[in-house]
Amino acid sequence: MHRTKVKVVEEALDANNTIATANRADFDRDGVRVVNFMSAPGAGKTSLLERVLGDLRGIRPGVLEGDVQGSMDADRLAHLHVPVTQLNTDSGFGGECHLDANMVRSALPALPLADIDLLVIENVGNLVCPAEFRVGEDARVMVCSVTEGEDKPLKYPLMFRTCELVLVNKIDLLPHLDFDLDKLLYNLDAVHPNVERMLVSARTGEGIDAWRDWLAGVAAPHEVHA
Amino acid sequence: MHRTKVKVVEEALDANNTIATANRADFDRDGVRVVNFMSAPGAGKTSLLERVLGDLRGIRPGVLEGDVQGSMDADRLAHLHVPVTQLNTDSGFGGECHLDANMVRSALPALPLADIDLLVIENVGNLVCPAEFRVGEDARVMVCSVTEGEDKPLKYPLMFRTCELVLVNKIDLLPHLDFDLDKLLYNLDAVHPNVERMLVSARTGEGIDAWRDWLAGVAAPHEVHA
Repeated sequence: MHRTKVKVVEEALDANNTIATANRADFDRDGVRVVNFMSAPGAGKTSLLERVLGDLRGIRPGVLEGDVQGSMDADRLAHLHVPVTQLNTDSGFGGECHLDANMVRSALPALPLADIDLLVIENVGNLVCPAEFRVGEDARVMVCSVTEGEDKPLKYPLMFRTCELVLVNKIDLLPHLDFDLDKLLYNLDAVHPNVERMLVSARTGEGIDAWRDWLAGVAAPHEVHA
Repeated sequence: MHRTKVKVVEEALDANNTIATANRADFDRDGVRVVNFMSAPGAGKTSLLERVLGDLRGIRPGVLEGDVQGSMDADRLAHLHVPVTQLNTDSGFGGECHLDANMVRSALPALPLADIDLLVIENVGNLVCPAEFRVGEDARVMVCSVTEGEDKPLKYPLMFRTCELVLVNKIDLLPHLDFDLDKLLYNLDAVHPNVERMLVSARTGEGIDAWRDWLAGVAAPHEVHA
């Protein structure tokens, strides 16, 4: 019975990858680079976007906001005057806890791809399923808040393992927590050795310039990372 | 096509409810009351259990730990000398982001139900899918950390709506956050008016006595809530 279940899961992931490849082709056609941006609920994804999208070194960003319900994060980004499209997973998708390639595909007609260099897809807040579904992205970034404890890489290894960058956020709170940063980084290296990581605070701005440069570099690797 | 998807989801939930009812009958046979304990990753579920399970007003507790991988939370509870059973959702379940009634059923043979008055099922850290699957519980409790922001009830309404108790944790951090507690409680009442809520800190112990009494009261409602 378990074997059948695993087979069904594999077929679903194969179907997802086929659609992700189609998304990728559409992005390439318009020269759009794509970041899949993931974290647990409340780790600070939207705040970290608010900090950098307004001045991305000449790169023109766009955002696809994935939420179960509502458009609160999209509303928060409105003042930045960048194109933001809302994708709700409870409308027609049954309250999904993640974005998959087909959901992203359904949103493509609403995205002004010709006017975007870099599309950030803010996934549903969840450390499990978003990691299982490619959506056609160039890079995956996850946010891990120091308030969540040092054990998260070991408990949600796939998420930490499939990312190109881990943002360790809310470091302004370190003096007020019983939290061992070295232990978190040790656990991170245990599941994804030497993955690029940045210590940041969306609140104080610490580390934000490096995050801005990294994000801009996805869309213009030669200009920014030269 | 969307209608078909919704129908499949409904059938899955019907099958889940049938198994949840069977779990409920097994729990009743041994006089075990059951709490389904849920939150986002790192909100403090295990810390809040560590605070109270060692002295639960004469109630004999047991714990079923749900995690994608590993037994870190079960290990943390070992010093309390209460029965703890680990249930991993990646073994045979394909890396599920939640517990369902069938997974809990598969763990029942490993639980010493005759020696337990109150079983706490610590669900996988996730604010979406755990709320959709009943497992045979008497009550649902969720933990919401003040570090996650005020908007979470509006973004994950089903989770907040299906709980009998909401623990607002990490209130010791309030002086260090840009967080409006009144706004959180306003949003909570918007999705679940007047749901019981407690302000707690697993770190300082604030509010923990009330949480202990509430939990003991699930297993012995007359003695504790009299």
